[in-house]
Amino acid sequence: MRHFDQELEQLKVMLLEMASLVESAITNSVNSVVQKDKLLAESVLEKEATVNQMEVDIDDFAIKLLALQQPMAVDLRLIAAGLKINTDLERMGDLAVNIAERAIELYQEPVIKPMVDIPHIAALVQSMVQKALDSFVNKDVELAKSVLASDDAVDDLRTASFHELISYMERTKHNIPQAVSLLSIVRNLERIADHATNIAEDVIFYVKGIDVRHHAEVRE
Amino acid sequence: MRHFDQELEQLKVMLLEMASLVESAITNSVNSVVQKDKLLAESVLEKEATVNQMEVDIDDFAIKLLALQQPMAVDLRLIAAGLKINTDLERMGDLAVNIAERAIELYQEPVIKPMVDIPHIAALVQSMVQKALDSFVNKDVELAKSVLASDDAVDDLRTASFHELISYMERTKHNIPQAVSLLSIVRNLERIADHATNIAEDVIFYVKGIDVRHHAEVRE
Repeated sequence: MRHFDQELEQLKVMLLEMASLVESAITNSVNSVVQKDKLLAESVLEKEATVNQMEVDIDDFAIKLLALQQPMAVDLRLIAAGLKINTDLERMGDLAVNIAERAIELYQEPVIKPMVDIPHIAALVQSMVQKALDSFVNKDVELAKSVLASDDAVDDLRTASFHELISYMERTKHNIPQAVSLLSIVRNLERIADHATNIAEDVIFYVKGIDVRHHAEVRE
Repeated sequence: MRHFDQELEQLKVMLLEMASLVESAITNSVNSVVQKDKLLAESVLEKEATVNQMEVDIDDFAIKLLALQQPMAVDLRLIAAGLKINTDLERMGDLAVNIAERAIELYQEPVIKPMVDIPHIAALVQSMVQKALDSFVNKDVELAKSVLASDDAVDDLRTASFHELISYMERTKHNIPQAVSLLSIVRNLERIADHATNIAEDVIFYVKGIDVRHHAEVRE
């Protein structure tokens, strides 16, 4: 194995460590909302600094690889995709923090209908995140494409939740602050799905050298 | 001038063309809300494809520079920062589209108090975007730092608007759908400010080689 191959492997390992932290932040933040578990929410907030530091370390490492090696073709695409995936993972971590903050606002509130569609949306979003990362590990373009296909389903669930939450607010004004927090959780989940989509697009670019962003026809 | 310097200059020109499109999308989307101008909102939607195409072109060009040249130090940092700024600009364009879509929902609705703080927040966010881009053009680290300092002010305005909007919703349920759309506009403006902050951080990295993300102490 070339020394450079070992370094590329190291870059992947760093990204996967970060991904694993971010995935558990997402899971814990959603569970902290659904189970009204304040301690779990606080554990998500405590991990934020670690995720931030990993983002800086991965960027530094990737830029050093660009500087010291002269990567070509697939190696270069791996590093470029790695830089972008790194940014997406860090933002997903921030969104999990937002959700955990809403959990802390909500944990003492009575439940207005069992959390609307949040567990349902969260399950879909988490499976998109999982598939996007698996497609990266296994260079699996078909799996990456399946992530792109799920994006519309998330949008539909988001829209349905919004309508439902607005009708709760209209029913009695006491529901309003809580419904606004729930709106925010739904929106944060939707944004996590957007980042999973970005990662899937980057995987397709890395494996095939094709840029599928903004080309709906390739995404079928 | 080295041929490579000309290419770096070309990369900057491409980024600034894209920035100028995105800045006008933000301005037009905010004006379409405040002036209830549906045609203006539609003009923002029409420009989205152009912004998306520019993002792909700039990424391709930057990755070609990485592949064909062997950039070092400040040149490498310019290209790495360029890749990140490009992503931020495209997302800002998407957020302007979100705002324009809300404008289309709202243009026939009566005004519930003159748009809350939206013009005020929008003015602050637009000045952050302008300063972030000027700091890139002029390699002006002090100006970039001033963008980071504005981020807290945006958060404060956002929180105040949220409280105000919730109180409108509580007053009468007829305000609720409109207030939810206004909440969404405020949140989109806040996210545009986050991207301006990202750009300012990338400018500091590009000029000084210091990574200021997640280091509050350097940001003072």
